[in-house]
Amino acid sequence: MSARVVCFGELLLRLGAPGQQLLLQTPALDVHVGGAEANVGVALSCLGHAVAMVSVVADNPLGAAASGELRRHGVDTRHVRRSAGRMGLYFMTAGAGLRSGEVVYDRAESAFATAQADHYDWPALLQGAQWLHLSGISPALGTQAAQATLAAARTACEQGIKVSFDGNFRPRLWERSGGDARAILRELFACAHIVFADHRDMAVVLGGEFAQADAQARVDAAAAAAFAAFPQLQYMACTQRAAHSASQHSLGAMLLGRDGTRAVAPTRELAGIVDRIGAGDAFAAGVLHGLMEGFDSNATIGFGLAAGCLKHAIPGDFSPVGVADVMAAMEAGAFDVRR
Amino acid sequence: MSARVVCFGELLLRLGAPGQQLLLQTPALDVHVGGAEANVGVALSCLGHAVAMVSVVADNPLGAAASGELRRHGVDTRHVRRSAGRMGLYFMTAGAGLRSGEVVYDRAESAFATAQADHYDWPALLQGAQWLHLSGISPALGTQAAQATLAAARTACEQGIKVSFDGNFRPRLWERSGGDARAILRELFACAHIVFADHRDMAVVLGGEFAQADAQARVDAAAAAAFAAFPQLQYMACTQRAAHSASQHSLGAMLLGRDGTRAVAPTRELAGIVDRIGAGDAFAAGVLHGLMEGFDSNATIGFGLAAGCLKHAIPGDFSPVGVADVMAAMEAGAFDVRR
Amino acid sequence: MSARVVCFGELLLRLGAPGQQLLLQTPALDVHVGGAEANVGVALSCLGHAVAMVSVVADNPLGAAASGELRRHGVDTRHVRRSAGRMGLYFMTAGAGLRSGEVVYDRAESAFATAQADHYDWPALLQGAQWLHLSGISPALGTQAAQATLAAARTACEQGIKVSFDGNFRPRLWERSGGDARAILRELFACAHIVFADHRDMAVVLGGEFAQADAQARVDAAAAAAFAAFPQLQYMACTQRAAHSASQHSLGAMLLGRDGTRAVAPTRELAGIVDRIGAGDAFAAGVLHGLMEGFDSNATIGFGLAAGCLKHAIPGDFSPVGVADVMAAMEAGAFDVRR
Amino acid sequence: MSARVVCFGELLLRLGAPGQQLLLQTPALDVHVGGAEANVGVALSCLGHAVAMVSVVADNPLGAAASGELRRHGVDTRHVRRSAGRMGLYFMTAGAGLRSGEVVYDRAESAFATAQADHYDWPALLQGAQWLHLSGISPALGTQAAQATLAAARTACEQGIKVSFDGNFRPRLWERSGGDARAILRELFACAHIVFADHRDMAVVLGGEFAQADAQARVDAAAAAAFAAFPQLQYMACTQRAAHSASQHSLGAMLLGRDGTRAVAPTRELAGIVDRIGAGDAFAAGVLHGLMEGFDSNATIGFGLAAGCLKHAIPGDFSPVGVADVMAAMEAGAFDVRR
Amino acid sequence: MSARVVCFGELLLRLGAPGQQLLLQTPALDVHVGGAEANVGVALSCLGHAVAMVSVVADNPLGAAASGELRRHGVDTRHVRRSAGRMGLYFMTAGAGLRSGEVVYDRAESAFATAQADHYDWPALLQGAQWLHLSGISPALGTQAAQATLAAARTACEQGIKVSFDGNFRPRLWERSGGDARAILRELFACAHIVFADHRDMAVVLGGEFAQADAQARVDAAAAAAFAAFPQLQYMACTQRAAHSASQHSLGAMLLGRDGTRAVAPTRELAGIVDRIGAGDAFAAGVLHGLMEGFDSNATIGFGLAAGCLKHAIPGDFSPVGVADVMAAMEAGAFDVRR
Amino acid sequence: MSARVVCFGELLLRLGAPGQQLLLQTPALDVHVGGAEANVGVALSCLGHAVAMVSVVADNPLGAAASGELRRHGVDTRHVRRSAGRMGLYFMTAGAGLRSGEVVYDRAESAFATAQADHYDWPALLQGAQWLHLSGISPALGTQAAQATLAAARTACEQGIKVSFDGNFRPRLWERSGGDARAILRELFACAHIVFADHRDMAVVLGGEFAQADAQARVDAAAAAAFAAFPQLQYMACTQRAAHSASQHSLGAMLLGRDGTRAVAPTRELAGIVDRIGAGDAFAAGVLHGLMEGFDSNATIGFGLAAGCLKHAIPGDFSPVGVADVMAAMEAGAFDVRR
Repeated sequence: MSARVVCFGELLLRLGAPGQQLLLQTPALDVHVGGAEANVGVALSCLGHAVAMVSVVADNPLGAAASGELRRHGVDTRHVRRSAGRMGLYFMTAGAGLRSGEVVYDRAESAFATAQADHYDWPALLQGAQWLHLSGISPALGTQAAQATLAAARTACEQGIKVSFDGNFRPRLWERSGGDARAILRELFACAHIVFADHRDMAVVLGGEFAQADAQARVDAAAAAAFAAFPQLQYMACTQRAAHSASQHSLGAMLLGRDGTRAVAPTRELAGIVDRIGAGDAFAAGVLHGLMEGFDSNATIGFGLAAGCLKHAIPGDFSPVGVADVMAAMEAGAFDVRR
Repeated sequence: MSARVVCFGELLLRLGAPGQQLLLQTPALDVHVGGAEANVGVALSCLGHAVAMVSVVADNPLGAAASGELRRHGVDTRHVRRSAGRMGLYFMTAGAGLRSGEVVYDRAESAFATAQADHYDWPALLQGAQWLHLSGISPALGTQAAQATLAAARTACEQGIKVSFDGNFRPRLWERSGGDARAILRELFACAHIVFADHRDMAVVLGGEFAQADAQARVDAAAAAAFAAFPQLQYMACTQRAAHSASQHSLGAMLLGRDGTRAVAPTRELAGIVDRIGAGDAFAAGVLHGLMEGFDSNATIGFGLAAGCLKHAIPGDFSPVGVADVMAAMEAGAFDVRR
Repeated sequence: MSARVVCFGELLLRLGAPGQQLLLQTPALDVHVGGAEANVGVALSCLGHAVAMVSVVADNPLGAAASGELRRHGVDTRHVRRSAGRMGLYFMTAGAGLRSGEVVYDRAESAFATAQADHYDWPALLQGAQWLHLSGISPALGTQAAQATLAAARTACEQGIKVSFDGNFRPRLWERSGGDARAILRELFACAHIVFADHRDMAVVLGGEFAQADAQARVDAAAAAAFAAFPQLQYMACTQRAAHSASQHSLGAMLLGRDGTRAVAPTRELAGIVDRIGAGDAFAAGVLHGLMEGFDSNATIGFGLAAGCLKHAIPGDFSPVGVADVMAAMEAGAFDVRR
Repeated sequence: MSARVVCFGELLLRLGAPGQQLLLQTPALDVHVGGAEANVGVALSCLGHAVAMVSVVADNPLGAAASGELRRHGVDTRHVRRSAGRMGLYFMTAGAGLRSGEVVYDRAESAFATAQADHYDWPALLQGAQWLHLSGISPALGTQAAQATLAAARTACEQGIKVSFDGNFRPRLWERSGGDARAILRELFACAHIVFADHRDMAVVLGGEFAQADAQARVDAAAAAAFAAFPQLQYMACTQRAAHSASQHSLGAMLLGRDGTRAVAPTRELAGIVDRIGAGDAFAAGVLHGLMEGFDSNATIGFGLAAGCLKHAIPGDFSPVGVADVMAAMEAGAFDVRR
Repeated sequence: MSARVVCFGELLLRLGAPGQQLLLQTPALDVHVGGAEANVGVALSCLGHAVAMVSVVADNPLGAAASGELRRHGVDTRHVRRSAGRMGLYFMTAGAGLRSGEVVYDRAESAFATAQADHYDWPALLQGAQWLHLSGISPALGTQAAQATLAAARTACEQGIKVSFDGNFRPRLWERSGGDARAILRELFACAHIVFADHRDMAVVLGGEFAQADAQARVDAAAAAAFAAFPQLQYMACTQRAAHSASQHSLGAMLLGRDGTRAVAPTRELAGIVDRIGAGDAFAAGVLHGLMEGFDSNATIGFGLAAGCLKHAIPGDFSPVGVADVMAAMEAGAFDVRR
Repeated sequence: MSARVVCFGELLLRLGAPGQQLLLQTPALDVHVGGAEANVGVALSCLGHAVAMVSVVADNPLGAAASGELRRHGVDTRHVRRSAGRMGLYFMTAGAGLRSGEVVYDRAESAFATAQADHYDWPALLQGAQWLHLSGISPALGTQAAQATLAAARTACEQGIKVSFDGNFRPRLWERSGGDARAILRELFACAHIVFADHRDMAVVLGGEFAQADAQARVDAAAAAAFAAFPQLQYMACTQRAAHSASQHSLGAMLLGRDGTRAVAPTRELAGIVDRIGAGDAFAAGVLHGLMEGFDSNATIGFGLAAGCLKHAIPGDFSPVGVADVMAAMEAGAFDVRR
């Protein structure tokens, strides 16, 4: 495979209530394809990078639709294997005003979660890649998925491929899988070149607590601890979100480097949110784009935050926008119709 | 009937333009079932109370759909009688920005409005109930409906069932029906344990005017006059609304007690309103829930206002939310997607 | 023809992504009929004026639909000729949040753009009219369209019919057509009773630049130059827009008279924008309504701005609202549902 | 008014379940404008005739939509008056297979039905017309509507305008209105140049029964009786329908002349019916087109039947097709896509 | 519980491609609630019987929607328990022409399938019932579901409640559950008053094969064997279907009695099939209706077949039709629109 | 490129009226991607072959959507170049009953039609391919497109790549382009291994007329003439269609070999047609599949006809079905829902 970036993780189908309805208020569902790592893959593909997905989908029309949708966005799906089993699903009610959005997961026992770890030939799958993107969701889906994630990370380390790891800590998934979250995540963090994580993730991975009164101080302390614990780690990036109502959030972001640099992108107000799902993944893709393109830290975190903010205006899990679209979102006061 | 709460009133079908369109801008209509008293009934049912509806619907698929929709939300419809005649309808254009929403009523000569008052056997219909909810709309629909409403209220009084009465004064309906609004409403207020009404309703019922310069003073004066005039009345509740644009309102509420207490729920800003219809009914249901559950006055009006505010984020006339949903709407800054 | 107002220009079909989707994110398109001059015509018709459209559409179901839609709004289409060729189209993605709306034009070689100028018998077409409305788009579509626009304007001048001209300067169209924008526009401005234009349009027409630091000063200078250059010109009107995000703009307007008067309508905040297309045309129609009804300058520009603002709350290119609707949009704080 | 054909009757809104759903199976309704006489008017307009509608609609957005829809199809609506009151509605469930379609009328007390007969100035309304089209529905809607219909027919007779009358006998409407159906219909038949009616209508109008065993003989006898009773009557036309299932009918037609001619159009099989409503009106329009164009009897009834058959393939009440479309439907075996 | 009929089984959500699309050809799904036993329950409720459902649904909005939909159709859902777990789903592509419809099940590990058998208090659940309806699907879902089904059947037997059992043999489900299909089904057949089954089901239950060349002879032999093996069994009913294309089937039915009677309902042609799912359940409900109402065998099987045929014209899994609707479907040639 | 099959031709967007509506009867359009050669490519890809498309699309969201849709179906789009210009469009009204479907083309001056012939590097584009599929539409689009098609065919000939050529003779396109249809087509036929063509195409290419009374004789004579004129040609395949109504066709097919063999697939009746567009392309793909897989002539034409028939049951231009789906369509009487 000649892709520059390889993403590994589960593809999910989102089944959502249309518009601002409650789930099944009317008997119709809109469908989107998602999955944390696939979202990053699609975003990077649309930003111009060669991306390949490694995954397993159900051997039925749902699985075919999921991989077809990746392909439509330019992602190489030759290594999205079709296998007996079910697709992971989630049901979504979008929020509005004082009513929060709500996700009902139905992803247990999926073809991906139950796929045998030794089916993945990582040296072959990663050949030629420069980046491997993983998240903390895959290892929380069960023993096999955890083993596969670890194997991917280890292979990447060995081959000098940079690992991007998004913490995405989900206590409920870990409870069900019964895996040792801390041990597994520690190893994954140890392989990473960049982690998308904040003080809460670090508290899980490193133990203890980052209880500083000041938000900035908490993140700084967590970053310091992370760089101390994981010698290979070069960057930690995170967003800071406040949800004033379901449709109005504010979002800031920062990127901390092993060299002590701290680039902060100023908080933006997001009113009239269309779809908040996948915003973290779009942010991660934006930051990765900056790193891959050699942006400096300020430009990198600025681009990442703009990509994440822009995603709130796009329906679905994916962020199918180009570099020019992200750049346009960074210009204040220039949001009239373009014609 | 073993329901704790009995609601009496007309079921309506709302035929509305989809999305933010003007009415019949495209040739399609979305349908919702509503009616002031039914809205209260559905909301109370979803808050966990046993509710029965007493009404009359058209003996055709429209009437069947209306009562089926109540049943779907857990309301007992055994006493929703089907009868020859038509369903009351209303056509709705949702507002947006500087364009106000607009309702076109088409409810004259409905099966409910023309049903004979003596068809209702109130002692049987109210047996076992603890609350009866009525509104000022039913008696404005015509002589028979007014007689039926009065008979319901009198029976409740005699049997020690608490009457909840929502003023809902509609001058146009009264003009058409030709009934003596003041006399009829006075008797209904006299039976009530709680009224949802403000100084304008009180001016109609008691005559005179509450012309204090200060909004709070007007409501206080109206409440004082109400408690003086109606010895059985224990509570008066009302909201205060300002509509900055069709999609941005602010809403506060207060609950005044015979004992002179005045609980005020602070005003909330509602941006991105989805559907404002039925918000007053959701508020009433929230207040009734507080009273039924023994909340103190502050908790009661707080819960009521949150229920009313939350309704603005829900399409349709009904407020199909649980206690936890209302509680969640009361927490500031916690409106990110729940997953 | 007995219409009071004659509009001349191209009818377009807008093919737009439903809701807040990206173009072709799902395989469906919503269709609206538009065109700058037709938008003005429909708005004036709905404000109560007798309006006739002069245009050419494709001799196929698309052309039939376009003229049918004008007729539906009361515009006389007897002089909308059907001819071989294609309809002008544009594809539209509505903006949201930090994502600007975007128009992709597909209007080249349309039946209108390629129609022979000498097919229009202007003395007959304008007989009985009091106003002729034109815009700067038609002459930019090609030689024949430019000749037709000039002929219309000249005939109107000769017959004492007031010409309303909306600058609508589009450099890309002029580049493609290769016409002499300045010369043609100069002649059209010279015929006009009122122009909808600001300092940028005037810089194009008159040459030079209006580079005053202050926005008001720039417009004043442009108006002064315009009245000096075009003795027949009585009014110049323009809006001032700021686009804070795709869904939140602010809009002000002013009307400047040859007599030196300057009526300014205060800026309004527009949140939750539904559809910004056609707002300038609705503004123009509102100003023309004021002039036709004999409003004073302040009332005229106030009505025009309200009409323009109200359009942002209406899907589609047209502004199908009545005088009462515009008046209602001018009242602050009265935007609750009307029932 | 310079229309060649004037139609008088009520405009209705059809509110129908989408696709093949049961009414309100999902909470959405598709809307069509109809009304027996308006259907004829629209069909004739699309066949190239100048048509004007005389009617009364509600003074609200529903009435505006109804008349706008006529205008869109080229019908002159200057004499569609807007008046206080409600629009006549009907709710529609399309049939399928062994489930018959079903109409629920909700048209009582409409603005049209309650309009005063003396508001119509028939000599002015009919000035310049060559044909007046009426049906048996209007006089069944109530005393005022019956008086208006009679006045229209009488005026037409006096002015030498040919009256086309579609029997459309609806016992239920007559029962409710309490009018003397036979007397009123007799007078209307007496004014008619052509009636669309069969032996059942004739039995109502003339009394007695046409009980011949043979279908053809029944129609012949009815025609003979009609021509004997009504000296002014020149033609009687009718269809013969068999409904094998809701989606498969067969339809034939015949035209009988005062001179004893009987033109029969052979029965056609209609499978996969899209919308059967308005087929009788499309047939009537087709026959009138033949008469107006001077077709012979065979060509007339052939064109009429083809128009009626073609309507079964078109959604909605209207038959918006041109002459070429009807001609195409007459060619056997040539139904592949045209491109 | 005072219901006459109790149904026990799983509620499913059908997620189907809209119209005639392939699954996920466009990203939308229509939702219907179904389940073999619930389908029978809804049909009987709509035919006028008091029906209660015993089931378990997921404790989330999907489960709430499923039970709400039953309630909407008048089924008592007090004993539809909400429990942790997932809803059973199935994905549906409707067939057309030479493309067969296709179901993809996703029902493993549902809240119903994993519910503990001893949670059902059958004596209480069946109190007052006259009929219990079960099917062969529930026992195939797993050990607990099989135990619950057997317990229900045994309790009914003991209490003299008639058991209706629909074979619905699904080899794939049995394979996965690993249960002893023959032993379990034998016991259920032994409890039954009526079974909906044909020679294939009987071959499974009794072993051996019914290999007569003649279709009728096979069914006769199977019935004879069934009555011999199961002394309590009074009736065996089955349909005979031929699928000429996905949209054109023919369907016949017969009812065989222990007394040797054999009532045969003649085969009907079904063209333009709307939705074939649930037709067997509608047939079973029709037959049960006949038995409950005391129809003779011919009337019973005729009503049953008509109900089954009619279902093909109704979208969704349910058959929400009344007695009059079924009767109407039995009249040949009377399928024009009713108005 | 390692694709086995290369297709060259224009991608089109189909904008169609939803369901059975007339074009723009409601203001919405469904969108499909098509194009004769792309249809063949998608079908072959779904049948399991490696396919690459060579084309040019507009450098805007429409072009991106078109190539994304090919990619979704597994077609390699690396050589679908994006270029300034417009997308070819066509507007579609589906037929029903006696109303034929209708296509309105709007494809003139598209990016594909105006692309320079010398931009295609055929030796590189065809490297490794075994088949090249072309049609008679591309050379009819203009000089450049004709040159490009000829260059492709010549290169294939030189490299021993088999050329499949679908006649698709469109007189209207040739008239507009002004090219020498006969000369160009002759050269393309001369390069072909198989042509999809009948006696009408052959009459165009070879001159003269095949006027035998018998249909079979006409095709035989045309084939004989073709094999005589084009020594490289091995096969001629064609369908025979009769359109009884817009929704009911019958379709047969035959394959004639240079060796004099004639394989005939028996005619099938197609009722309830969903979408007839692309059926010829699905047929061609089915025949090519047979040839590539080494089927004998009877199996090849049988598979091809089944693929063509099956397409009538699938919405859109593409035939996204697998081998098993085509095989299933060949089994008579087995069209019940598969579950």
